[in-house]
Amino acid sequence: MSDSRDNSAARRTYSYLGPAGTFTEAALAQVPEAVGQNWHSVNNVGEALDDVVSGRSDAAVIAIENSVEGGVSATQDALANIPGIRIVGEYLVPVNFVLVARPGTTLDQVRVVNAHPVAYGQCHLWLDATLPSHEHIPASSNVAAASTLFNGSIADAAIAPPNIVHHYDVELLAENVGDNPNAVTRFVLVSRTVPVQGRTGSDKTSLIVELPSDESGTLLSMLEQFSTRGVNLSLIQSRPIGDALGRYRFVIDADGHILDERVADAVLGVKRFSPNVIFLGSYPRADKLQITHENRYSNEVFVEARDWLRGLIAGEPETDS
Amino acid sequence: MSDSRDNSAARRTYSYLGPAGTFTEAALAQVPEAVGQNWHSVNNVGEALDDVVSGRSDAAVIAIENSVEGGVSATQDALANIPGIRIVGEYLVPVNFVLVARPGTTLDQVRVVNAHPVAYGQCHLWLDATLPSHEHIPASSNVAAASTLFNGSIADAAIAPPNIVHHYDVELLAENVGDNPNAVTRFVLVSRTVPVQGRTGSDKTSLIVELPSDESGTLLSMLEQFSTRGVNLSLIQSRPIGDALGRYRFVIDADGHILDERVADAVLGVKRFSPNVIFLGSYPRADKLQITHENRYSNEVFVEARDWLRGLIAGEPETDS
Amino acid sequence: MSDSRDNSAARRTYSYLGPAGTFTEAALAQVPEAVGQNWHSVNNVGEALDDVVSGRSDAAVIAIENSVEGGVSATQDALANIPGIRIVGEYLVPVNFVLVARPGTTLDQVRVVNAHPVAYGQCHLWLDATLPSHEHIPASSNVAAASTLFNGSIADAAIAPPNIVHHYDVELLAENVGDNPNAVTRFVLVSRTVPVQGRTGSDKTSLIVELPSDESGTLLSMLEQFSTRGVNLSLIQSRPIGDALGRYRFVIDADGHILDERVADAVLGVKRFSPNVIFLGSYPRADKLQITHENRYSNEVFVEARDWLRGLIAGEPETDS
Amino acid sequence: MSDSRDNSAARRTYSYLGPAGTFTEAALAQVPEAVGQNWHSVNNVGEALDDVVSGRSDAAVIAIENSVEGGVSATQDALANIPGIRIVGEYLVPVNFVLVARPGTTLDQVRVVNAHPVAYGQCHLWLDATLPSHEHIPASSNVAAASTLFNGSIADAAIAPPNIVHHYDVELLAENVGDNPNAVTRFVLVSRTVPVQGRTGSDKTSLIVELPSDESGTLLSMLEQFSTRGVNLSLIQSRPIGDALGRYRFVIDADGHILDERVADAVLGVKRFSPNVIFLGSYPRADKLQITHENRYSNEVFVEARDWLRGLIAGEPETDS
Repeated sequence: MSDSRDNSAARRTYSYLGPAGTFTEAALAQVPEAVGQNWHSVNNVGEALDDVVSGRSDAAVIAIENSVEGGVSATQDALANIPGIRIVGEYLVPVNFVLVARPGTTLDQVRVVNAHPVAYGQCHLWLDATLPSHEHIPASSNVAAASTLFNGSIADAAIAPPNIVHHYDVELLAENVGDNPNAVTRFVLVSRTVPVQGRTGSDKTSLIVELPSDESGTLLSMLEQFSTRGVNLSLIQSRPIGDALGRYRFVIDADGHILDERVADAVLGVKRFSPNVIFLGSYPRADKLQITHENRYSNEVFVEARDWLRGLIAGEPETDS
Repeated sequence: MSDSRDNSAARRTYSYLGPAGTFTEAALAQVPEAVGQNWHSVNNVGEALDDVVSGRSDAAVIAIENSVEGGVSATQDALANIPGIRIVGEYLVPVNFVLVARPGTTLDQVRVVNAHPVAYGQCHLWLDATLPSHEHIPASSNVAAASTLFNGSIADAAIAPPNIVHHYDVELLAENVGDNPNAVTRFVLVSRTVPVQGRTGSDKTSLIVELPSDESGTLLSMLEQFSTRGVNLSLIQSRPIGDALGRYRFVIDADGHILDERVADAVLGVKRFSPNVIFLGSYPRADKLQITHENRYSNEVFVEARDWLRGLIAGEPETDS
Repeated sequence: MSDSRDNSAARRTYSYLGPAGTFTEAALAQVPEAVGQNWHSVNNVGEALDDVVSGRSDAAVIAIENSVEGGVSATQDALANIPGIRIVGEYLVPVNFVLVARPGTTLDQVRVVNAHPVAYGQCHLWLDATLPSHEHIPASSNVAAASTLFNGSIADAAIAPPNIVHHYDVELLAENVGDNPNAVTRFVLVSRTVPVQGRTGSDKTSLIVELPSDESGTLLSMLEQFSTRGVNLSLIQSRPIGDALGRYRFVIDADGHILDERVADAVLGVKRFSPNVIFLGSYPRADKLQITHENRYSNEVFVEARDWLRGLIAGEPETDS
Repeated sequence: MSDSRDNSAARRTYSYLGPAGTFTEAALAQVPEAVGQNWHSVNNVGEALDDVVSGRSDAAVIAIENSVEGGVSATQDALANIPGIRIVGEYLVPVNFVLVARPGTTLDQVRVVNAHPVAYGQCHLWLDATLPSHEHIPASSNVAAASTLFNGSIADAAIAPPNIVHHYDVELLAENVGDNPNAVTRFVLVSRTVPVQGRTGSDKTSLIVELPSDESGTLLSMLEQFSTRGVNLSLIQSRPIGDALGRYRFVIDADGHILDERVADAVLGVKRFSPNVIFLGSYPRADKLQITHENRYSNEVFVEARDWLRGLIAGEPETDS
């Protein structure tokens, strides 16, 4: 199902949730090294990760967090369950929607609307106000919502990404129909497990941490592992492990890079009490935020402390500390 | 859209996600005071809560947590945004699925499967193993997945709750097709805001807490409000507030009742630093677990400490403490 | 043993560690309401507190902390063991020492030095540098060190407070012999237990807290009671309880007044888990420091939170929080 | 001032607070390797440490904590200020006192009592009950209190250690005059800085930690460094740094050995934020208590976590964690 850009065996292959026109494709378009390479459209995140693990693709772009709907459960659960994956990049795509229909349709003719459930949730207020008596038919993707208009769907219109007009001959009934004008989706680029890339000073480290089930207060203990090393968390999301009510793993994004001493030390602390820690990767941030910290958490301070400890164990005279 | 049981103006009305045959109806069947009352089928959680707030219904049963998929986002978000609601009861329903089809269909004929996305996610492994080349069409509810088999759907079969066989003339192709045999869904009974019910000793207190956005470490601070009063949390789930990436509210279930001094004190501590705390209710637990705690967190200790403080401010001689 | 100022039965009586000339007398001179009243010289802190408890004195001035030697153990232990006492004021006295001798003595003739052990410790560097071969004879108070020069002591000189020259006919051999030019001693004015005085905005609250012996981490728990209410501690000192090695009580000075909601709440938290809390008093600070705090710890926030809790228990509609 | 046992240049020399008969000598008698070596009596802890630092002695025994009076301030301050010292052993001596006098004296003749101030404090209740009108003359050591009876002191009796009867021809007026029958003093054996000795499983690690002066909550932060690694503290005592009121260092005894991973990690954490950490030593405990801890704090867990981190940075496939 590779598209027309797949014209060379020497090219790298990138999987993405297709078809052409999806927000995921827009994210892939932000990946510099993907320009001019093979773009391979897949149907869901599991297929994308399978491509990467099996070697059919070199990398894949998958949605991981949405400012309106929150963490993408399917992605978080897939990353928790499929080993051999590493996040190597992060991209932000503004999420905007249009209402489209078959050519010749007018807004007042719309009674049934095709929409992916997540997109439907993000346009709910607009639809209720504009088309109070509409009915909703769920679609499997944002682009599929539009494409089925031409495949016998009983729907009169579809919620779709703005660039749908470049892919289908649709009538544009309304623009900016999303309820939140600042909505954005965060995507990550994943590859097979590779050595950690170098620090850029504007990095993020992603983990999935399972908590011991037999102790209360373990979430507090986990957070303390980060706070006592001055590591800020920009994301902490619970996901059920799935075997029983009340058993959770946490998806975490920490400011900084695993090669930052304070981050490594915090991750070691988490690793020591968690029955399962998955390191998803350290990678440059999409928001380019430079990570700062108090001097006491700097690499130099960590190195000096270790040198001091080594010296005192060896019985060297204590120099001024 | 009330069903046939709605036969008396004097009866109370209970809204639930219908139609008849859903897991929500099974939860409503567990509510003793709902027996013989009007059961009002609605299409989604928003409609159920609207019924309650507007007074069209006396109460509603809604799904709030699923052992496989986690917190039900739509419910959590609706409870965060619709004021005037109070949780007054909790019920657990085992979640099991069957694969059904139009009469005369055999399993080997199934190529397209209708399923609500959540149900599809819970039967994924079985479907992949049994029907490796199947396609999925999303349905709007578990019962709708089956009902559309008779309304022109191109699907050959549907994932549905076991009791679907009592409501539709379907062929039962397979039972226990859920991937997790212990899957369970937690439902709550909600009413308009009413005075808090008395303690039973086996209670749960539900809150939604928004964290201050301008401080790191606030999740840790919030958890400390509970831990320093010996209050255990059985659920803590993040949900995006929706206005920007990285802004979260937390859905919390605390062991104990708001009339327990330690719970009240912890909730006061949370209230003091959160820009928004929603008290959803204190209600008897479905699991009947008796809540225990160290003696230092007992009501008596709280009362004695306040008496002691009052005495010392008044200048009374200190008795043996 | 009252001095000449004790000339009226209607006057109030203040006990202090005498005789005239001690630093304690200098502290008492700072107490506005003591001017023109009876000043009663005593020999030790126990006697001073006995005077107050028995009603022989209305109040007493006692040293509680020294910038060089730390908490005054005798005072701290007496306050822990003698009930019925309340601190009502605080005073700071700069601590400076002179070396004095019998008239006609010169510095090069000094071989044996009388000094209270604490004063000796504070002048040790100067003595070692100036009189390297001196011997030390301990005295029972700073003034006694000088007075015994005239009572047959074999000492040649004495370490004494600067104002000793107003009380004894001594030769001043050297001034500023203290090793730390900024040394200061903190004194408190104590009365019988009385109702707590009003807040001034620049207050201090003193406590003695015994920790439960059978749990580790209790010191951390105690400190969290203060930190989670935004209450800073300016003093925290351990003192052995005395019954076994490793059993401690802590002498604590907290910023703020027991009538500040955040302080009262922290003290309640401490009271609930400590086997013994002694409230020594809330009183105006000698350093006049205005206590500030984040808005979330203000009295209004505490009151609002309690009102909110009361309303939600009663079932009142939640107003915007 | 070495005593008669100093009869060989090849022997090791041990300094102790003398003269013969002190509790410190009783502690030295517990040191197996000191048997038959030179015992060198000194006048105070500073002299003992000077002997060690200068090489005049191989080691010294000094009192560090007293179950009644608490930490020995002079020792704690000396250890904070004199570099090049390491604690290598710990010994406990029961503290008991007798009242002695010149031969022929009877108890009813005693009006003036010689006593070291610490000893006087520990016998205060007995003296007040038995000799209500006694006067106290401070002595520079427990043995000196007795010896001066024969050197022209105006005292009639002296508080002294029980074994004083082996050293002076005194009349024993009363035994067990200490107020606390379980009183004990803890002594440490110190040497010059040497490499850390091996773990015994029953070890103690002593530190002196200065807190940053410009932050509140730093004591809490310091304690968290230990608690988040499961390291219990058996002693934590504040001592003024001496330059200003409110500036403290803390004397800490942690359960375990610096070669225990959890202890080393906690000490590193403390080192990183403290302006000054003094490592006094890791040494076998006098109480022979075996230190236990949760499995998550074991050395193996620390080593495994580091190996895991190394592997993930190198890009090795994650094995089951």
